[in-house]
Amino acid sequence: MQPLSCPFLTNPELGFLDTKTRQEPFAWPVRVYYEDSDAQGLVYFANYFKFMERARTEWLRSLGIEQDALMRDDRRVFVVVDTHADFLEPARFNDELLVTVNLVSLARASFLIEQQIFRNSLDGALLCRGTTRAALLSTDTLKPVRVPASLFEGSPP
Amino acid sequence: MQPLSCPFLTNPELGFLDTKTRQEPFAWPVRVYYEDSDAQGLVYFANYFKFMERARTEWLRSLGIEQDALMRDDRRVFVVVDTHADFLEPARFNDELLVTVNLVSLARASFLIEQQIFRNSLDGALLCRGTTRAALLSTDTLKPVRVPASLFEGSPP
Amino acid sequence: MQPLSCPFLTNPELGFLDTKTRQEPFAWPVRVYYEDSDAQGLVYFANYFKFMERARTEWLRSLGIEQDALMRDDRRVFVVVDTHADFLEPARFNDELLVTVNLVSLARASFLIEQQIFRNSLDGALLCRGTTRAALLSTDTLKPVRVPASLFEGSPP
Amino acid sequence: MQPLSCPFLTNPELGFLDTKTRQEPFAWPVRVYYEDSDAQGLVYFANYFKFMERARTEWLRSLGIEQDALMRDDRRVFVVVDTHADFLEPARFNDELLVTVNLVSLARASFLIEQQIFRNSLDGALLCRGTTRAALLSTDTLKPVRVPASLFEGSPP
Repeated sequence: MQPLSCPFLTNPELGFLDTKTRQEPFAWPVRVYYEDSDAQGLVYFANYFKFMERARTEWLRSLGIEQDALMRDDRRVFVVVDTHADFLEPARFNDELLVTVNLVSLARASFLIEQQIFRNSLDGALLCRGTTRAALLSTDTLKPVRVPASLFEGSPP
Repeated sequence: MQPLSCPFLTNPELGFLDTKTRQEPFAWPVRVYYEDSDAQGLVYFANYFKFMERARTEWLRSLGIEQDALMRDDRRVFVVVDTHADFLEPARFNDELLVTVNLVSLARASFLIEQQIFRNSLDGALLCRGTTRAALLSTDTLKPVRVPASLFEGSPP
Repeated sequence: MQPLSCPFLTNPELGFLDTKTRQEPFAWPVRVYYEDSDAQGLVYFANYFKFMERARTEWLRSLGIEQDALMRDDRRVFVVVDTHADFLEPARFNDELLVTVNLVSLARASFLIEQQIFRNSLDGALLCRGTTRAALLSTDTLKPVRVPASLFEGSPP
Repeated sequence: MQPLSCPFLTNPELGFLDTKTRQEPFAWPVRVYYEDSDAQGLVYFANYFKFMERARTEWLRSLGIEQDALMRDDRRVFVVVDTHADFLEPARFNDELLVTVNLVSLARASFLIEQQIFRNSLDGALLCRGTTRAALLSTDTLKPVRVPASLFEGSPP
């Protein structure tokens, strides 16, 4: 699935990442609570972005990156540059969701993540898919800094 | 990836809407409270989508559309089909923002809105721009229904 | 700890519940994400109420009560009548919290829950304590209905 | 209305404040958007705390206190020590609310605010009432500092 027909996404240099993560994507469960729903009885659309951000945080943690330490010790923060989501089917109050994280490309100062949200499991209904481009910023200069090549090397197979 | 330079957007049939709304876009002020900020001291990225939704709600209200009455009396709700945002400069706690709403195209069962978020005024820094495609759903069938041509006719000049 | 000096809380009839649940309280882990923090770098105060509500939802689930089925099949919803929280020490971005749930009293049409939020574990720093009184409402009449005595009987020891 | 039967609230020294503010309370309008509602079709209970905090922020602004400048220039932040709310009648999606702010007591290092939320106007239905005790903290020491007597003197009559 390629929500964006962007050459960036098919960069051969990044093919191995793509292949590797697509086979066994990182996935994080999220339960839908009352706080996430709205008067339509469904998940409020902006909250899917929160769910995807939680999964990205847990994916970074699985790679050994704790963002509070990164901010405090390395004076670096991740910021979202742009993001997009397609809402295919609604999630409802009390649903259990599974949110995947795939790193699809890594540029000098930013990287692109592709995510999917399923009901219950990877075999469940696909409810939402999204992309997020993030950069690494220095908290001192508020300018982008190089994303070290080694940053995502701890990625689980 | 070019979320905005879409043929859809320059559809000559829609040119009049585009021209008209760009000249005097609907704009809605939003104050940034503690609830909107995060530990980076900036507005949490997903909250810009809330700000844009508030402005769309007020734009609909300016056209005479009250969404609670629409749901209760007409059994219709608007749902977001897809949405996208570019984050250009961060908004900070206590900032006063101005959020614009431009209807850029109207299809049979959906419409596309383009929005911008400025600091203070239309002359202030452009912080965020986004697009949202929305559909009108029947609450009985949960299927899209035709968006009546007259719906947006109350649009202010 | 008794945040409210209310005779209700020391009702001897309810002592057994109190004793039982204090010994092995239901506890639910909550991770603090960026969405939960604010520009002070701490958890935004109103979000502790969300964390406590998540833990109550999971406590109800542990008793066999799924609130979506309760709403759909039995046409009953829980509503918060009043709530209170003392903020003792701040939780920070990326903290792992543990939220307890103790049923301290059960009246005809409402019940009182006492909760605590610890950092990391029950041996960690106590960050917040709160009480919530909830009622069971009919979705048809929007009036309180009797809370069945059996409702909380599935409570784990 | 005295939600807490606390001697603090009837301190004769503070009677003048009480009387003054009760006569013409500061009030701030809040519109209920989809983001504020939940699957019960009503405002999610924790969001009333956000509404009350927005009104407190605007009340402080009306007294000349901008909290971003307070944090940056004076290295002081307000923090909530404890808070309480009674939910009397539900607010619904698209409601227009009016949130009052009354300073009811001022101690050395904290102050107590009493708030009410009405539908539409001060003559409308009373939906919620709450109290919040806040302190002023040094961002350097994270310890409470004296709340200057002059702080709230700009209070409108």
